[in-house]
Amino acid sequence: MSERPTSIDVEQAAERIAPFVHRTPVLTCEAIDEMVGARVFLKCENLQKIGAFKFRGACNAIFSLGEYEATQGVATHSSGNHGAALALAARRRGIQAHVVMPEISSQTKMIAVAGYGAKITTCGKNLADRDEALRQVVEDTGATVIHPFNDNRVIAGQGTAALELLEEIPALDVVMAPVGGGGLISGTAIATSSRSRARVIGVEPAGADDAWKSFQAGELLAGGAPETIADGLRTGLGDMTFPIIKDLVSDIVRVSEEAIVYAMRTTWERTKLIIEPSAAVPLAALLDRQISLTGHNIGIILSGGNIDLERLPFPRKP
Amino acid sequence: MSERPTSIDVEQAAERIAPFVHRTPVLTCEAIDEMVGARVFLKCENLQKIGAFKFRGACNAIFSLGEYEATQGVATHSSGNHGAALALAARRRGIQAHVVMPEISSQTKMIAVAGYGAKITTCGKNLADRDEALRQVVEDTGATVIHPFNDNRVIAGQGTAALELLEEIPALDVVMAPVGGGGLISGTAIATSSRSRARVIGVEPAGADDAWKSFQAGELLAGGAPETIADGLRTGLGDMTFPIIKDLVSDIVRVSEEAIVYAMRTTWERTKLIIEPSAAVPLAALLDRQISLTGHNIGIILSGGNIDLERLPFPRKP
Repeated sequence: MSERPTSIDVEQAAERIAPFVHRTPVLTCEAIDEMVGARVFLKCENLQKIGAFKFRGACNAIFSLGEYEATQGVATHSSGNHGAALALAARRRGIQAHVVMPEISSQTKMIAVAGYGAKITTCGKNLADRDEALRQVVEDTGATVIHPFNDNRVIAGQGTAALELLEEIPALDVVMAPVGGGGLISGTAIATSSRSRARVIGVEPAGADDAWKSFQAGELLAGGAPETIADGLRTGLGDMTFPIIKDLVSDIVRVSEEAIVYAMRTTWERTKLIIEPSAAVPLAALLDRQISLTGHNIGIILSGGNIDLERLPFPRKP
Repeated sequence: MSERPTSIDVEQAAERIAPFVHRTPVLTCEAIDEMVGARVFLKCENLQKIGAFKFRGACNAIFSLGEYEATQGVATHSSGNHGAALALAARRRGIQAHVVMPEISSQTKMIAVAGYGAKITTCGKNLADRDEALRQVVEDTGATVIHPFNDNRVIAGQGTAALELLEEIPALDVVMAPVGGGGLISGTAIATSSRSRARVIGVEPAGADDAWKSFQAGELLAGGAPETIADGLRTGLGDMTFPIIKDLVSDIVRVSEEAIVYAMRTTWERTKLIIEPSAAVPLAALLDRQISLTGHNIGIILSGGNIDLERLPFPRKP
């Protein structure tokens, strides 16, 4: 793979992971189209294996490893979907995954990761604790580290969702995706720019707007302390994802917490799809008129659907 | 249309309604397959327009009307999905729908039906009040009554979901659907028996088991007072649906309320699909081992996804 992934890398990734991933449906919803004043095409990565697009990148990374490298296993740190994705992808290849998780991670998430056969190493909640724990795992096992987003194989894998979306709906004017570490939006931008005139627009919670700041400044800035319900987007961009975003993404838009919850609820009620708050962020930008795309054909990557059903952000009637 | 709908009626219905309905996806979920010990194919009618298969039958009935008949409008009684389905189908044909609803119906449901352009007539909660209100509407308007299930055009329309399922997955051993008034299961049985060796199995809440009793007795029996969370299945069979069920359905199985809620929650968590309690009933029979179909290819019609998000039957963490 070259310095930066190309559309050819995304196409090769699509071929490599095809036996393992769901080709997720693209769904439409008249009620949402009317609310937005545009035609919206939802690429349902919430229906992907492990409930998120992350399985694409993890699969591509793991099935790109050489035979010897693979026997040593893979390792990562994650408190969320990437850990589960890496664990399941490793199981598919028949190799060991090691996942470093903060002690404070939810039991549900740890059980999911362990359920896919990964070995979990817990660590303290600081970045330094986490990095030291991962270093130790690698020293002990020789496992290859697969970063959640700052990895060309992962970026190319995430781009396959947009590739499938554009194969199905070629005439899109805009493709939107949420921005966390930037793996999804950069893969999406690579896949889109090569085969379509569609603009790529990233959306970020206002409470975690490091990508917006970096995009405005034209250089990678450190993020502040993120505060948002969209737990998948509390990460800052990486030095591999930012340059791609800078070159290929048309705009980054920010949304409020209220708009995220409203968009999530609207999606649940109108489409009958369970999406996590992070996945609601692009639609939030449309519903809350943070960007006007009236009359356009808009593709949205619904990034995931992993949420605790006992902690929903909806009021409750007696 | 003949005395009883045939597979040809279902095929004609499919052609008639194709421009108006979603061809819903058929999804699979490894986690559910493992739990059940079989391969389960979910026909996602929760993703259908108005959030339920009912739109198929209503569309077929309305687009089967002659020109003059159509100009008089259509009428029905419903406190649930059929009212919304008829309202939207009538709007598609550009005719008026009249829906008789009990005064005690939820505001949400009335708003939905009115939102699709139907005229609502409220009535008391007794059957006699309802029938009188509907009779009056018909006398005043000349509208054609479209019964929620005891109607050949509706039965044939409901069968199109199974038809699509079998087109996509021909090698099914079993097709399962919930049983309320019997429109879905009888349409499913007609569609399935003509093109497949698959057995058709109906599933009913134990608290609303009139179909099971009639099936065992071999004659149509009146139901008792239904008590179940599956609000779509609180209806008794009709004299047009029962004979079809008697001839073409292999078995009817009953499930507990606990099993329904567990199956609903499992579906939400594992497939990321919002389904209403009625739609969870067939999977409840499998997860709760009320029937053993180990190793089989099982198609399930996920009948709908309309549920009040502020009244979910899940515990709530602080």
